Amino acid sequence: MKYSTRLSDSIHILVFIQQSERPTVTSADIAVSIQTNPSYVRQIMAQLKAAGLISSSQGQATPKLTKLPQETTLLEIYKAVEKDKPLLHLDTHTNPRCGIGVNIQLALADYYRQIQKDIEHSMQKITLQDIITSYLERISRMDR
Amino acid sequence: MKYSTRLSDSIHILVFIQQSERPTVTSADIAVSIQTNPSYVRQIMAQLKAAGLISSSQGQATPKLTKLPQETTLLEIYKAVEKDKPLLHLDTHTNPRCGIGVNIQLALADYYRQIQKDIEHSMQKITLQDIITSYLERISRMDR
Repeated sequence: MKYSTRLSDSIHILVFIQQSERPTVTSADIAVSIQTNPSYVRQIMAQLKAAGLISSSQGQATPKLTKLPQETTLLEIYKAVEKDKPLLHLDTHTNPRCGIGVNIQLALADYYRQIQKDIEHSMQKITLQDIITSYLERISRMDR
Repeated sequence: MKYSTRLSDSIHILVFIQQSERPTVTSADIAVSIQTNPSYVRQIMAQLKAAGLISSSQGQATPKLTKLPQETTLLEIYKAVEKDKPLLHLDTHTNPRCGIGVNIQLALADYYRQIQKDIEHSMQKITLQDIITSYLERISRMDR
């Protein structure tokens, strides 16, 4: 089972852009840091741009955050890259001729929606700035 | 990306056992309902048994719930089959030589733990009986 680390990688990208002191930041630079391939980074950056979280000019490697980190919530980043994909998954391949099969998944759907709502509420309380602050604290502890 | 439907399938199994009016319930019967293979069903049933949620006698296809459905929470079922696996995943394969890479994931870990706690709290409020009740309501609406 492979798990999506898309949210984690998106946050990585946003922090990388925000923390970078260099005039340009390429998808290749970020890919080295995440240890992944530049096309995956570009794909996520396109989603973050479409969601209005970063801006970038065609052909120029100068991505910028469009909002202050304290104004960007974890939920916005999640929605930008995972869309409406929930964290809990129904088994939608049950036997359609089995009454239990279909109806139990439908009954479960209501409860999963409730849990997803709680998760999103929880994500909404955490900002990109919270993560950056916690990151900077870790870095400063390392320097000591 | 394949998603785990293990929790959904586990609930399916528990409801199937609880609702069954037949003297025996085999993993093959349940597998037909989920539309999966009996060995996957047996694997989950072994986990549910290890967690004390069902009982079964060696060689006899007579699994039983050990507790009343209103005493079994979604969280217990989740823990039985997903163990301590969280719903949000860090990218633990970032470049170890990159300060951002390692530290951003560690900073993120604290917030993911917080979200996981909220998810588990949310799961604890839902019982197997809630799902069965909702399932029976759906079935009765179909019969009308």
